[in-house]
Amino acid sequence: MSLENLEVIAFDCDDTLWLSESFFVLTQQRFDALLSPWCDADQTAERLIQRERENLAYFGYGVKGFALSMIETAIDASEGAIPSAAIAEIIEWAREMMAHPVELLPGVIETLDALEDRYRLVAITKGDLFHQESKVAASGLADRFEAVHIVSEKDSVTYAGIMTGLSVAPERFLMVGNSTKSDIEPVLAIGGKAVHVPHDVTWALEHADEALDVPVLSRLDELLGLL
Amino acid sequence: MSLENLEVIAFDCDDTLWLSESFFVLTQQRFDALLSPWCDADQTAERLIQRERENLAYFGYGVKGFALSMIETAIDASEGAIPSAAIAEIIEWAREMMAHPVELLPGVIETLDALEDRYRLVAITKGDLFHQESKVAASGLADRFEAVHIVSEKDSVTYAGIMTGLSVAPERFLMVGNSTKSDIEPVLAIGGKAVHVPHDVTWALEHADEALDVPVLSRLDELLGLL
Repeated sequence: MSLENLEVIAFDCDDTLWLSESFFVLTQQRFDALLSPWCDADQTAERLIQRERENLAYFGYGVKGFALSMIETAIDASEGAIPSAAIAEIIEWAREMMAHPVELLPGVIETLDALEDRYRLVAITKGDLFHQESKVAASGLADRFEAVHIVSEKDSVTYAGIMTGLSVAPERFLMVGNSTKSDIEPVLAIGGKAVHVPHDVTWALEHADEALDVPVLSRLDELLGLL
Repeated sequence: MSLENLEVIAFDCDDTLWLSESFFVLTQQRFDALLSPWCDADQTAERLIQRERENLAYFGYGVKGFALSMIETAIDASEGAIPSAAIAEIIEWAREMMAHPVELLPGVIETLDALEDRYRLVAITKGDLFHQESKVAASGLADRFEAVHIVSEKDSVTYAGIMTGLSVAPERFLMVGNSTKSDIEPVLAIGGKAVHVPHDVTWALEHADEALDVPVLSRLDELLGLL
């Protein structure tokens, strides 16, 4: 895949520019402990991901839907025995997640600094509008992007719409992100370019089915060596 | 206020183009009944709106935050005695609200039909990205708008950004909506035009402090008589 003649470089945000999934993992560890009287951690994880999958069509992505799925899982798994104080605690975790400071990943600032004069930079992030806007603002990165697109789903239709809005041809558009399913596959499918920067932890619903033929980086600033 | 020389007409969505608040009111009636062993309806309403106000900074607008606020109110108001089955029921209501068919208000289609050749029409709606996108899609109205802006807050900064994006001067921009606080005041504050179409029921947190000097309509299609 040639990365010459690029015009727009688009960055995923959660777990590409800043930490996200690790806060879900930490919360889920607390959730495992909360449900330990009724379920072991594996059963809890399996029940929760199943509930999240079912709820995705109703609640979409993000912390609030995650909290509602945890509450339902807790009630089901405990056969109704979960005390209401434990449910209140789950909602308190959701508030903590929504208010958590943004932690940029290594090399992000340097990468954006080095690229901003040579390319049009945009951010494309999926999930809860309110939370994503809060994180973009808190990241201090908003001014580095020509546009920040917060979308409810990252599929080929979404990416095609963004490319049209930016008046950029797919072959001059590079997407950089940690999720093969959301950041890589749908962009390649419409003729765009992609670079994969896997993160340590990735949500079960973001795993793609097969390996893809794109550059894989261990840190974002390795992108500079490719361009 | 002169409505001559307009270029862009922007419509609020919830309770301007389609029903919304009435579904919250219906759900709240079910919630009042659920909490009736512990609170009368007035106390329940007061506790819930207080909780929603506190949670707004964490969860933003929309059904999922409403559900989380109902659950917390139920636990507090019952002093923890609310059964977990009742909490599961609240989450089921949230799913119903998210999946509820869109019901257009009277005169909406006729109004958009009559205006679409004469003005640039856009929609500006606040709240949950996932739910608002679902409603825009289900409304069948998406194609009538040059753009649909889903925003997390409707303040003057938001409107100024939208006007800039549309390259329209404030005095050639008309906002039409049911909420004085979200649709009228912030637009007038930056020199835009506004028309108020009050809805039967308006959420307590959307009431403005004072009366505003803008045209007030009882149905959306009365707008055609003004233009």
